[in-house]
Amino acid sequence: MNPDPEAPRPEPRELDPAALSRDFRAVRGASEALCEPLSDEDCALQSMEDASPAKWHLAHTTWFFETFVLRELDDYPPYDEAFEFLFNSYYNTIGEQHPRPQRGLVSRPTRDEVLEYRRYVDAEMLQRLDGMSAETLAVSELGLHHEQQHQELLLTDLKHLFSHNPLDPTYQALALGSVREVKPLAWHYVPPDTRFVGAGAGGFAFDNERPRHRVWVDGFELASRLVTNAEFLAFIEDNGYARPELWLSDGWIAAERERWRAPLYWRERNGGWTTFTLGGRRDVREDEPVCHVSFYEADAYARWACARLATEQEWEVAASALPVVGNFVESGLLHPAAAGSPGEAPGQLFGDVWEWTESAYRPYPGYRPASGSIGEYNGKFMCNQMVLRGGSCATPRSHARATYRNFFFPWQRWQFTGIRLARDVR
Amino acid sequence: MNPDPEAPRPEPRELDPAALSRDFRAVRGASEALCEPLSDEDCALQSMEDASPAKWHLAHTTWFFETFVLRELDDYPPYDEAFEFLFNSYYNTIGEQHPRPQRGLVSRPTRDEVLEYRRYVDAEMLQRLDGMSAETLAVSELGLHHEQQHQELLLTDLKHLFSHNPLDPTYQALALGSVREVKPLAWHYVPPDTRFVGAGAGGFAFDNERPRHRVWVDGFELASRLVTNAEFLAFIEDNGYARPELWLSDGWIAAERERWRAPLYWRERNGGWTTFTLGGRRDVREDEPVCHVSFYEADAYARWACARLATEQEWEVAASALPVVGNFVESGLLHPAAAGSPGEAPGQLFGDVWEWTESAYRPYPGYRPASGSIGEYNGKFMCNQMVLRGGSCATPRSHARATYRNFFFPWQRWQFTGIRLARDVR
Amino acid sequence: MNPDPEAPRPEPRELDPAALSRDFRAVRGASEALCEPLSDEDCALQSMEDASPAKWHLAHTTWFFETFVLRELDDYPPYDEAFEFLFNSYYNTIGEQHPRPQRGLVSRPTRDEVLEYRRYVDAEMLQRLDGMSAETLAVSELGLHHEQQHQELLLTDLKHLFSHNPLDPTYQALALGSVREVKPLAWHYVPPDTRFVGAGAGGFAFDNERPRHRVWVDGFELASRLVTNAEFLAFIEDNGYARPELWLSDGWIAAERERWRAPLYWRERNGGWTTFTLGGRRDVREDEPVCHVSFYEADAYARWACARLATEQEWEVAASALPVVGNFVESGLLHPAAAGSPGEAPGQLFGDVWEWTESAYRPYPGYRPASGSIGEYNGKFMCNQMVLRGGSCATPRSHARATYRNFFFPWQRWQFTGIRLARDVR
Amino acid sequence: MNPDPEAPRPEPRELDPAALSRDFRAVRGASEALCEPLSDEDCALQSMEDASPAKWHLAHTTWFFETFVLRELDDYPPYDEAFEFLFNSYYNTIGEQHPRPQRGLVSRPTRDEVLEYRRYVDAEMLQRLDGMSAETLAVSELGLHHEQQHQELLLTDLKHLFSHNPLDPTYQALALGSVREVKPLAWHYVPPDTRFVGAGAGGFAFDNERPRHRVWVDGFELASRLVTNAEFLAFIEDNGYARPELWLSDGWIAAERERWRAPLYWRERNGGWTTFTLGGRRDVREDEPVCHVSFYEADAYARWACARLATEQEWEVAASALPVVGNFVESGLLHPAAAGSPGEAPGQLFGDVWEWTESAYRPYPGYRPASGSIGEYNGKFMCNQMVLRGGSCATPRSHARATYRNFFFPWQRWQFTGIRLARDVR
Repeated sequence: MNPDPEAPRPEPRELDPAALSRDFRAVRGASEALCEPLSDEDCALQSMEDASPAKWHLAHTTWFFETFVLRELDDYPPYDEAFEFLFNSYYNTIGEQHPRPQRGLVSRPTRDEVLEYRRYVDAEMLQRLDGMSAETLAVSELGLHHEQQHQELLLTDLKHLFSHNPLDPTYQALALGSVREVKPLAWHYVPPDTRFVGAGAGGFAFDNERPRHRVWVDGFELASRLVTNAEFLAFIEDNGYARPELWLSDGWIAAERERWRAPLYWRERNGGWTTFTLGGRRDVREDEPVCHVSFYEADAYARWACARLATEQEWEVAASALPVVGNFVESGLLHPAAAGSPGEAPGQLFGDVWEWTESAYRPYPGYRPASGSIGEYNGKFMCNQMVLRGGSCATPRSHARATYRNFFFPWQRWQFTGIRLARDVR
Repeated sequence: MNPDPEAPRPEPRELDPAALSRDFRAVRGASEALCEPLSDEDCALQSMEDASPAKWHLAHTTWFFETFVLRELDDYPPYDEAFEFLFNSYYNTIGEQHPRPQRGLVSRPTRDEVLEYRRYVDAEMLQRLDGMSAETLAVSELGLHHEQQHQELLLTDLKHLFSHNPLDPTYQALALGSVREVKPLAWHYVPPDTRFVGAGAGGFAFDNERPRHRVWVDGFELASRLVTNAEFLAFIEDNGYARPELWLSDGWIAAERERWRAPLYWRERNGGWTTFTLGGRRDVREDEPVCHVSFYEADAYARWACARLATEQEWEVAASALPVVGNFVESGLLHPAAAGSPGEAPGQLFGDVWEWTESAYRPYPGYRPASGSIGEYNGKFMCNQMVLRGGSCATPRSHARATYRNFFFPWQRWQFTGIRLARDVR
Repeated sequence: MNPDPEAPRPEPRELDPAALSRDFRAVRGASEALCEPLSDEDCALQSMEDASPAKWHLAHTTWFFETFVLRELDDYPPYDEAFEFLFNSYYNTIGEQHPRPQRGLVSRPTRDEVLEYRRYVDAEMLQRLDGMSAETLAVSELGLHHEQQHQELLLTDLKHLFSHNPLDPTYQALALGSVREVKPLAWHYVPPDTRFVGAGAGGFAFDNERPRHRVWVDGFELASRLVTNAEFLAFIEDNGYARPELWLSDGWIAAERERWRAPLYWRERNGGWTTFTLGGRRDVREDEPVCHVSFYEADAYARWACARLATEQEWEVAASALPVVGNFVESGLLHPAAAGSPGEAPGQLFGDVWEWTESAYRPYPGYRPASGSIGEYNGKFMCNQMVLRGGSCATPRSHARATYRNFFFPWQRWQFTGIRLARDVR
Repeated sequence: MNPDPEAPRPEPRELDPAALSRDFRAVRGASEALCEPLSDEDCALQSMEDASPAKWHLAHTTWFFETFVLRELDDYPPYDEAFEFLFNSYYNTIGEQHPRPQRGLVSRPTRDEVLEYRRYVDAEMLQRLDGMSAETLAVSELGLHHEQQHQELLLTDLKHLFSHNPLDPTYQALALGSVREVKPLAWHYVPPDTRFVGAGAGGFAFDNERPRHRVWVDGFELASRLVTNAEFLAFIEDNGYARPELWLSDGWIAAERERWRAPLYWRERNGGWTTFTLGGRRDVREDEPVCHVSFYEADAYARWACARLATEQEWEVAASALPVVGNFVESGLLHPAAAGSPGEAPGQLFGDVWEWTESAYRPYPGYRPASGSIGEYNGKFMCNQMVLRGGSCATPRSHARATYRNFFFPWQRWQFTGIRLARDVR
């Protein structure tokens, strides 16, 4: 994605091999821990083109270290030449890839063989970290953030797979707190101003978060919490899915074609609604944030509610002043949680559900993709997708930050995605 | 698209019925003049879902006046109740629509019967303009701009249809000037500043051009002219269509699936390239601007050229100081023309080809769709499309302006669409 | 389709040029007469891949004479070289073909230009018939039967096109007799025997009707008349379209996918049923034979009625003793007619509707396709299709005979196709 | 499929519970033995809609006994109510079915859990066989033949799955004899006569093999052996895949769309051809019968060879005099073997590859499907498919017989399907 190799690049950050080594063990171990409740069959299946088998996630994240770190080093003996093709996701500059829709057609290597592959690469990485250049250390760090992304995908892909099984299988028993009373939605005013958004120097960030740049942001109001299932049910009951005037044209076409009548995983039963969770199927709780909605549904809901979604700049302005705390994967809930008591600032900005913004995913002014094959990581997806912010109940805590730009197609629903409202100041 | 009918609306402009009457005759006559070289069969066929028969354009633009103006008036006797359904394009709030892909399955009403329908509505409009309210006059004016849009579509749809005929039919003989020498591309610097973009009060504008609002625009450079066929041929010969690293991911997928190897209508013959024009098939001229490229191709070309496309804000900043002159439909060329001598300002900003920008088509801050059914005109399409600026050789001169936002999906190629480069200041 | 050019061929029949000349004028004139009620637009549109524009039928039947007769003669100057490609239907040995689904994208040549093409070829044919060899005369005769096939297709394709127009256009006013009382269905017994089926020497027949050959046919009973709309309504009301046990597996899949609930062109209105005819939309009459059903529906109906369809051998055995009289295109009804009084033999075997048999369309034992390109006429379609017998209300009288094998895919419904029952003798 | 419950049915055969018990253990054990070389992942994946996971075959064959035998008995406690839905293949009269294309989305029950299900049902069956009515014993016997069919499918589905794995996995090492010299093809003459085909009373047969009935069969010649890879290579090298005149129209369309250039699993490498086998990828051997061709390819090959395929009646006439010996699954080759020395009669009629006939799969005269839900077993598939005869290297020996009618769609290639030629007597 970078045709201009002569252009100056930011210096890689100084990274401490020892700290990185600690992180490496932790992140790599976390991926495997996620698979412990799973059978070999659970790990091998693929439920749709957008999703991948758990086994593939375990292998591909390993391939990432092997391809972008180890193979760049002298004297590294690759584990299996066939894996370069088999576990390449989308890096055209590395070479041909095994077709994405066929990831679920590969019964071998088995899960055990993939775990062996992981052990081999882990040993090589840990042994070599000490001697790596700053640049190679930076790619290794990137590999850990990459693996954290796949940890979240592994859970959402698994949820999608399990949802197709008429037996309603369970990943693990989920903690079920008592139902809370959620306070009415309030609005937090943010005055107009010239702002700076994007990641600055220091600290890890993906290339798509850079450069930090100046923008003008009009005054706006941001909702005090996420939209709840109770609120979304009101939209459904007000015929929201059957009123084209509430929808973007492409959204209406998608909703008609897919016969959407509720969020993904919802099913009507005896006059009520159930939803599918990683703990199996259970009743929809009114206090919880609505989840597994597409951008189209989020946008239609906002219009119905006489509001709109926030721009990603607005979201970042509001979030950048707040600590990154929330319901992340470490909470073990694996499900969004009801809002707590309202505070000075908007709540639930981090964790629970990724919040659709009204911003198309496009490069920041002055954006430069990382050099080399890694440049394919983000830049080439900057079209037709929408930005989401804030992380979810399946995101590792250390993976979230105020400048983080997640992105999905506006019709996709299998991520933990929800709705935060904003509105203009009149 | 407007859930908030109580909100204040800008007052409609004061329009002079006599002037509007003159414009009405001129614009309505122009549509019919465009069809004069056509046979009845030419007017009836539809070559793809995105395109419509010429006869449909003649009828739908008439339907617009009947539906949004005449039917709102007392005592108007509709021409044919069935037409309300048959010639509604996409206004869900008006009612069900005849399916778009079936517009080419309607042999009756014949072209002559559609022309009769036009005469009926024209007579009613011209007779009633004098007594209309300011608001109704404003909708009538909108109807004329709407008809001008369809005039351009009528020509591009017809070109697409004719291109499928192995006999290479001719719409009209095109004037063919001599080949010019085009000067090397130069760059025009625009300094960073807070800017205002969008249409202000006074003068006609679509709702999507409003409100006029403040933005920060970094310094940038804009190319002195459009990209030529000669330059695009260099991209082709440098294997541009076969190098995924130059392409957005979705663009690469589209190019592979559609087997794009050149702009739409190009065909290789005896080692050279021909293209299809409204004057039939002829050789590709190196001096002419490249045309009929998708956003994906424009974006890939720009990356190959170590540049990028302009944002719509950058384009508007550059264009708003310049007069709206260029190669429009009135020139009769019906084909983009080679750049003239370079001047103080970038050339070819208006006319010739619509210029893909790198901006996704989204609402301006504070955007409010027009009230009522007319609100479906623009707002609901603000997703998945890219903004184009400047007008083309098929655009009526009076239809172009610096704030005009055209929009198409990034894979579409049948409009007169081309490439203007921009770049960051280093 | 014939890899064995050395094999002996039957001698062509002796044909009288003068008689052929008379037939030529009659058949060619009949095609043009069919188009007289049509506008230019009616003649140009194509409603689905299976159907063709009327203009194309006029041109293709002309192309047939030009390609297989005139071009074989010395010193024939072709009318337009481009037509060889444009109006070739499916003869691969002649060359590439204009893609079938794009026949509706060709506005030029116009209808008038096609009629001119016809006049040119007609004049050449009529002038040259006298001097033709026996073999060339035989191909000319084949061309007339070919044109008669296309006359029927022209009408059924037009009916299909008009049915998509929400204005319900009319081809011509249809004569509407009074409703008749139809007698209960009776059965005609045919004893078991060795039989001969297929066309013998003498008289015109397509290659697929030959050779005449011996078969053993078990005893069976054949219904005295066609199944009526009243009887088919009973099937609908008994939930026939919703009971998979009545359907072939592929039929059930088709019915579900296409949401069939009644024959093609039927529409429910105010608790009753209407159907679309070449005279516009009108009520379904209970006395008329059911029409526009697929083989799947015919087969399901027969199972529901504790019967089956006849084999093509059974049908031919029963029909070969009877005169070829019935409701053909010359009656001007353009719609199947109620059965008359029962007689000694089964009624309605000829005309009204093509009768689905339970026989797959496969070659007769010893089948040899015609030699040369004409060999593609029939043989290559002998797979996946079912045989129909008897002709319809859109078939020219002189085109029908007891050995005639028509064939369509089991899901197709746009021909005039209906149901005759048979059953085993217990 | 049987609308006439009053009709007399043949009496079920007298079956010996002890013998059936022995067969039951043998057949059930054979299915599990086939899965022994497989990993859990191998058993869970589905490579296309036509194929099923090995685990599904293990479960569905068990479901068959549970549904059609055990649930019909008093006091049988079903193993898991959800399995009735989950492992129903296509029996609409039993109830809704889990969608076929989603069989590969069911990671649970795991393979171990399915094996447990088998043990439960096996125990119930073995314990109850003694007391069963003649009719229930007959259904139990049917269940064993059903399971043998699925044993063959299990192997062909697995082969298809493995062929998608770029690592070319191996089911088991295959014995590789030395290359044989195959004698030139000779022809065996069979004189014209009235014949009887189909299964008579006595001995197991599927309902589609009955009733035994009289047919007239013209004299014909049958090839002395199967077509070899060497012969098929000559077809390929003579451009057979690129000559439309050799193909049925639907076959040509399929070949173009799927870009067939050789049998399924063949791949060109270094100027030679390899094929994929259950023992991995290896070179195509010229002496072996060609395999994994569609009916379309078999038909085109026959035309190229100036011959044709046999009708199923011809095949049966020739085969019914011969002993059922050949290369069946018990040989352990799992691959077709070269022909041995020619004998008095045609060789290789049984085993090696299923032989496409030129007969469409339609009911025999007087055909009556089995009563009840079992009636869905065969009858509803009698459309659009072609008959194959003789069994293959993946067929259990005891499953083959001269009257056996296998059937697949003419485009399907993943079964062990090959070519036997026949020709008319001149």
